[in-house]
Amino acid sequence: MSTQVDTLLHARWVLPVDTARSVLEHHSVAIHQGKIVAILPTAQTESTYTGQTELHLANQLLMPGLINSHGHAAMSLFRGLADDLPLMTWLQEHIWPAEAQWVSPDFVRDGTKLAIAEMLLSGTTCFSDMYFFPDICAQVASELKIRAQVCCPILDFPTPWAANAEEGIHKAIEVNSTFRHNPLIQIAFGPHAPYTVSDEPLKKIAVYQEELQIPVQMHVHETAFEVAEAEKNTGLRPIARLEQLGLLGPQFQAVHVTQVNAEDLALLSQYQASVIHCPESNLKLASGFCPVDQLQQAGINVALGTDGAASNNDLDLFGELQTAAHLAKAVSGNAAAVPAYEAIAMATINGAKALGIETITGSLEVGKAADIIALNFNTLETLPVYQPVSQVAYTRMADKVSHVWVQGEHLVREGQLTQIDTEQLKLKAQQWGEKIRAGKTDD
Amino acid sequence: MSTQVDTLLHARWVLPVDTARSVLEHHSVAIHQGKIVAILPTAQTESTYTGQTELHLANQLLMPGLINSHGHAAMSLFRGLADDLPLMTWLQEHIWPAEAQWVSPDFVRDGTKLAIAEMLLSGTTCFSDMYFFPDICAQVASELKIRAQVCCPILDFPTPWAANAEEGIHKAIEVNSTFRHNPLIQIAFGPHAPYTVSDEPLKKIAVYQEELQIPVQMHVHETAFEVAEAEKNTGLRPIARLEQLGLLGPQFQAVHVTQVNAEDLALLSQYQASVIHCPESNLKLASGFCPVDQLQQAGINVALGTDGAASNNDLDLFGELQTAAHLAKAVSGNAAAVPAYEAIAMATINGAKALGIETITGSLEVGKAADIIALNFNTLETLPVYQPVSQVAYTRMADKVSHVWVQGEHLVREGQLTQIDTEQLKLKAQQWGEKIRAGKTDD
Repeated sequence: MSTQVDTLLHARWVLPVDTARSVLEHHSVAIHQGKIVAILPTAQTESTYTGQTELHLANQLLMPGLINSHGHAAMSLFRGLADDLPLMTWLQEHIWPAEAQWVSPDFVRDGTKLAIAEMLLSGTTCFSDMYFFPDICAQVASELKIRAQVCCPILDFPTPWAANAEEGIHKAIEVNSTFRHNPLIQIAFGPHAPYTVSDEPLKKIAVYQEELQIPVQMHVHETAFEVAEAEKNTGLRPIARLEQLGLLGPQFQAVHVTQVNAEDLALLSQYQASVIHCPESNLKLASGFCPVDQLQQAGINVALGTDGAASNNDLDLFGELQTAAHLAKAVSGNAAAVPAYEAIAMATINGAKALGIETITGSLEVGKAADIIALNFNTLETLPVYQPVSQVAYTRMADKVSHVWVQGEHLVREGQLTQIDTEQLKLKAQQWGEKIRAGKTDD
Repeated sequence: MSTQVDTLLHARWVLPVDTARSVLEHHSVAIHQGKIVAILPTAQTESTYTGQTELHLANQLLMPGLINSHGHAAMSLFRGLADDLPLMTWLQEHIWPAEAQWVSPDFVRDGTKLAIAEMLLSGTTCFSDMYFFPDICAQVASELKIRAQVCCPILDFPTPWAANAEEGIHKAIEVNSTFRHNPLIQIAFGPHAPYTVSDEPLKKIAVYQEELQIPVQMHVHETAFEVAEAEKNTGLRPIARLEQLGLLGPQFQAVHVTQVNAEDLALLSQYQASVIHCPESNLKLASGFCPVDQLQQAGINVALGTDGAASNNDLDLFGELQTAAHLAKAVSGNAAAVPAYEAIAMATINGAKALGIETITGSLEVGKAADIIALNFNTLETLPVYQPVSQVAYTRMADKVSHVWVQGEHLVREGQLTQIDTEQLKLKAQQWGEKIRAGKTDD
């Protein structure tokens, strides 16, 4: 007698992103109560499983949903507001003033929704966010049923959300209590960067991180300028300073890291910290090249992020994965560096490791959450297929996403959002655009 | 009384890619007998023009079709056959053997069709090709009504098309006579690379180039290894050698050029040669970084190419444009290098200049051919819109192509090919894939 499950997906290919880096052909995935209960050859399913829902995905590929390990979701409403500028000019003369003028709970709600919709449609099932009003982001993510790590922003100076670092830490702990039992949401500390947070708050974060098991995500070594200034002002490189303050550890997520010397590498490796690589943002802001191959050789876990749409300007993690794979080869001078499957791992299981949720998601394995995407390979751009990992890594893929499930919930069906009113969302985005454009003209 | 034209397009935005780098709002383009006859504010069209066909493109942007200035169309049938390998291993151990086994007139016909379909759907209206059986490529391009420069491959050693360079040159001249009066097709010489063509044939090409006004496209300074070997073997860097052989000039199109010193720069600049930059192929094969900003500073025209789908692995020139813009900033260390509109120019008017067809196409200007694309900006990924050039350059764009015209012919309508049977083409690609995969397993 066959076992009844909620959903049975029959696919031409399955990339589980397991440690063996398998490519399965004609396999099926059985989902029950939001979890993967079996992955087996389709020919064997008939005698063993029946699905309340069954989907036949001929010429499609199933893989774990992508994990966008760093971004600023609500900034989608600033998409293309200021381009072709270096990081500090972009931040100080454009983004910070725009944020001071516009960022509010409503802005964060609408902007986060817009970003989540874009991410789901392009295959992302889990994102890490760092922005003001993180409680609202967590709420929206939970409502829209996507998985998220929400980093509460902590800066020395006043932001739309907190007057100073002290208040930021306090509020972060509150937000953490609110969401700690939500299975989709993880709260983290988001001290902005070494140059915007002083020692005292960082020491406190280190204590709470340990005590409450809250991860920490931070922009670190984003530019050579940042590192040089820190050495001048503190006598220490930022990573060394963070080590002294007790922040480094497996729960520490260092974003960007375009500058590393042997000492930095040794520290990141010793403390098993993760690096979140945002290649397109680093290129666009001319910040530098993250030495991914070198980091991986040193045993450091490297995950991927799009950064915010204000600096990228899309949240297409498949595009980011492609750029990361391309760039790693050129930067290391080795065309065999970060081969296709490893690039896919950076965008999935490595993201889960960085966020400390690798027992829950990041690969298709029995017992893990059914965070799954299907990709349509029956298109002119994806044929012929010799090795499906090649297409996933090197061919434009975000527009091939046909289905998305998070915890077994079918959030994208045949390329359409099932739970979000797309037209209403577009209207909202347009209205914000008009308002912000008008505001800019006024001053 | 108003003038009757074939087609009248009313758009929310028009990017003509003119020298003023204009962004026009609420403008219309009038097309008659394949040419642009007017670009004017939509409010003024009512009294001046009526179109036999009128299209209202609210929330859409019109711009010149993209020019993919370097590729190997038929190689789409080898998409993903061999990845994550350095140039010479990839060529000598995978691509050349596969070509020897499989390349035939049928292969070129089917592969070129597949590539053209992919290019049209992603906004390319003109491509340059360099592959065996160029007569077939030219025939297919002409039948499918896309604009093309077809470079006849010339190599010292036997290829599926010619026994040696001598025969290649002879055949190229024949192909040129066949197509010289076809308004869509331009024939060029395609000497493969400095390391595969000796002095005598290159001298002959230089003579014919001058006499018959046939352009020359060649892979040049693709890797540091190539340049070092040439210096060792000939005492000259390849560009210097080509100058001595009389090949450099405004009709010379140097593809890749990841390695330049002051002498190379001076020569390319002095002879007004163009550089065709293929960023994704250069990254993927770890060939190096083309110093685009430096070339442009020296007054050298830089155009863009995808290279073949066997090394990229898609023909998405919008993606290439984005990579080129991103990369130029990081390579030059200047976030203001190659701003959005200049990146768009590289993929349009600069391509036309490189191919010597800038009086015919490459920008939307009265008198030029109606080689036009429309982009849908009413999507979650493209909203809000502050400066449309930002979205064109930095947001995933190929899947937003809604309409494509070449010489006024409507080749893509609402995202669908109007003259190509997509399903039949996919079937053909699948069949080739199966055959080639089976052949690989056999040996």
